[in-house]
Amino acid sequence: MEIEFIQKLAKPAETKIVFLVMDGIGGLPGEEGLTELEKAKTPNLDKLAREGICGLHQPIAEGITPGSGPAHLSLFGYDPVKYQVGRGILAALGINFPVQEGDIAARGNFCTIDSQGKVSDRRAGRISTETNQELCSLLSQIKIEGGEVFVETVKEHRFLLVLRGGGLSADLADTDPQVVGQAPRQARSLSAGADKAVKAVNDFLAKAKEVLSDKHPANMVLLRGFSQHPAWPSMGEAFGVKPAAIAGYPMYRGIAKLLGMEILDTGEEIEDQLNTLEKSFNDYDFFYFHVKKTDSYGEDGNFSAKVKVVEQTDNLIPRLMKLNPDVVVVTGDHSTPSLMQGHSWHPVPALIWSKYCRPDKVNKFGERDCLAGSLGKRLPATALMRLALANALRLDKFGA
Amino acid sequence: MEIEFIQKLAKPAETKIVFLVMDGIGGLPGEEGLTELEKAKTPNLDKLAREGICGLHQPIAEGITPGSGPAHLSLFGYDPVKYQVGRGILAALGINFPVQEGDIAARGNFCTIDSQGKVSDRRAGRISTETNQELCSLLSQIKIEGGEVFVETVKEHRFLLVLRGGGLSADLADTDPQVVGQAPRQARSLSAGADKAVKAVNDFLAKAKEVLSDKHPANMVLLRGFSQHPAWPSMGEAFGVKPAAIAGYPMYRGIAKLLGMEILDTGEEIEDQLNTLEKSFNDYDFFYFHVKKTDSYGEDGNFSAKVKVVEQTDNLIPRLMKLNPDVVVVTGDHSTPSLMQGHSWHPVPALIWSKYCRPDKVNKFGERDCLAGSLGKRLPATALMRLALANALRLDKFGA
Repeated sequence: MEIEFIQKLAKPAETKIVFLVMDGIGGLPGEEGLTELEKAKTPNLDKLAREGICGLHQPIAEGITPGSGPAHLSLFGYDPVKYQVGRGILAALGINFPVQEGDIAARGNFCTIDSQGKVSDRRAGRISTETNQELCSLLSQIKIEGGEVFVETVKEHRFLLVLRGGGLSADLADTDPQVVGQAPRQARSLSAGADKAVKAVNDFLAKAKEVLSDKHPANMVLLRGFSQHPAWPSMGEAFGVKPAAIAGYPMYRGIAKLLGMEILDTGEEIEDQLNTLEKSFNDYDFFYFHVKKTDSYGEDGNFSAKVKVVEQTDNLIPRLMKLNPDVVVVTGDHSTPSLMQGHSWHPVPALIWSKYCRPDKVNKFGERDCLAGSLGKRLPATALMRLALANALRLDKFGA
Repeated sequence: MEIEFIQKLAKPAETKIVFLVMDGIGGLPGEEGLTELEKAKTPNLDKLAREGICGLHQPIAEGITPGSGPAHLSLFGYDPVKYQVGRGILAALGINFPVQEGDIAARGNFCTIDSQGKVSDRRAGRISTETNQELCSLLSQIKIEGGEVFVETVKEHRFLLVLRGGGLSADLADTDPQVVGQAPRQARSLSAGADKAVKAVNDFLAKAKEVLSDKHPANMVLLRGFSQHPAWPSMGEAFGVKPAAIAGYPMYRGIAKLLGMEILDTGEEIEDQLNTLEKSFNDYDFFYFHVKKTDSYGEDGNFSAKVKVVEQTDNLIPRLMKLNPDVVVVTGDHSTPSLMQGHSWHPVPALIWSKYCRPDKVNKFGERDCLAGSLGKRLPATALMRLALANALRLDKFGA
């Protein structure tokens, strides 16, 4: 279902929607045969499950393990196969660099070139982040014709390059040859109209090579994933909501910003975030509330710590419900089973609570319980946003 | 989900996948109110069902009864609506004729024409297969300009025609008028660039008419379904696997070959096939293991014999599991209820076993038990391949 279709049906309302996203919530059974969510004591989520409807969603498609970016886009109703974010832009989001319209962003690597100019190490021996910072501050001083240069440290050998200047196209090939023994490539346009950008990037590359010439092993740079801030319909345009994000981590704040959400100041603890929600509840009508640590502990393989974050989140539900939201969606962006120490393809438990839910027979919020729920076992994640809007009485009838 | 999408995510791994396909496994209740699979004693499959995940898949779409070709394509991740095999090629696969790239293949019928050259019987009175063989051997001697001619008996009035020669297009209309009282049509191109093929086919038709002139009732031929070996991505290209087929029947070996599987020598008994699997287990990483007789007995309406084949297959599961496969998929290509004596549209029970399955509550491998499983009640069959690859840790994350 295309966003353009929903857009035509969206209508204004006074109702408020909260998306409580426990990152990586889906899991796999631990020693006792229960998943993290099944193991956690969640009386408040269970109550929502009982009153609302449950199921499992699929972020992309059966068997596909999503990155955080695509998984979040799905949750907010944007088909991530259609709405793909360039890697340069993702890198910018990841370090909270404020990309502007018209900027082109690329992922950069410091690399080592030999005396013949050929790449001998694509990662410059994984230099320290401190060295990276020194080098980035040198590269930031480069001046190019008709544009501004921003060079920001990411981590170790990785950095972000942003060029700002009117009319720069991002339709450029990578300069990273992907193998050692070849020289770094020149920038090359992939379509007509990128000549100005080619010139700007090559100008930067030539000057960077000069600046870094005595900085062995980090004596050159490789660039990948040139991209621009995408021109997507904002959530406001698409769904008629006034959305705000309550997320502590840059990556998620970045994605929210891409979709036109207001990014609220908040802390990294769930309780800080809830304070923010309470404070701003009157000012917006869609809230993206992001709990990061379910995912972090899943990635660490720390089963019991993940359980604990779920329980902490559950504890705060009564305060959330006291705000009288019209629709509450509780789910994750994807699964991060502690057992796998990483994202996975497994469907993600989800519940929708509103006074217009037709209750199913699910009484507990857990993976296996949700299998019996009316949202189904593999609901396309993009459907959650539509269902939230419907339950908030924010969608008109289709056809007469 | 397009194969091209999966192709970008596929990554190499040491893991091994076994697809155990019990042809036509899905059934309908017999006298005791149980389906063939429900009736069969299957302790080993039930154990896999308990440890893994279950559900039912839908080969094509709700209500669509698939032929063996499309149903198998779906199982292997190829959308059979997009990847259509021409009928000529299917006929060649069915009799194990080694079609080469560039060949054009057509289904042939011997027919009867009257003194005015009009078709009076499109099937030449269903001549015997023996007569067919004699006539095919005569037609095989036909020489045409710039090409080779192969004419092979299929059965009764049906034969296969293959023309081999550079640059022959298969974009030709059928010569079969589909009704009696009209003359067989001349070959006719359906697009530019088929002139050479038109000439070759008409040359063949004229000479066939001559050869058959005194062979009443089989005194002419009709051709349908001109087609070529399709240029599809092989399973190796698409999914990064090294696949092998352990199938006794030509049709299934043919389909496997179309997808780039290695066709292993084996016998027609399930036990022979298991011996082959054991012998070759180190040499490949994807195995298509085809059990034919569940379907054959279904087609015969022989409920109890179908039950018995399921039990025989179940008996061999411990030997299969001893090989330590990483992922086992057990399912059928479609349903063949004994009650209907033919293929049907009913969803097909399926289970996936791997150490990364999130168990559901299914404890028995049967149609009704599978309804509660986490694969869902109508999983698109093409998703099975993706899920198998995911469980084998052979797919990269989508997006960062």
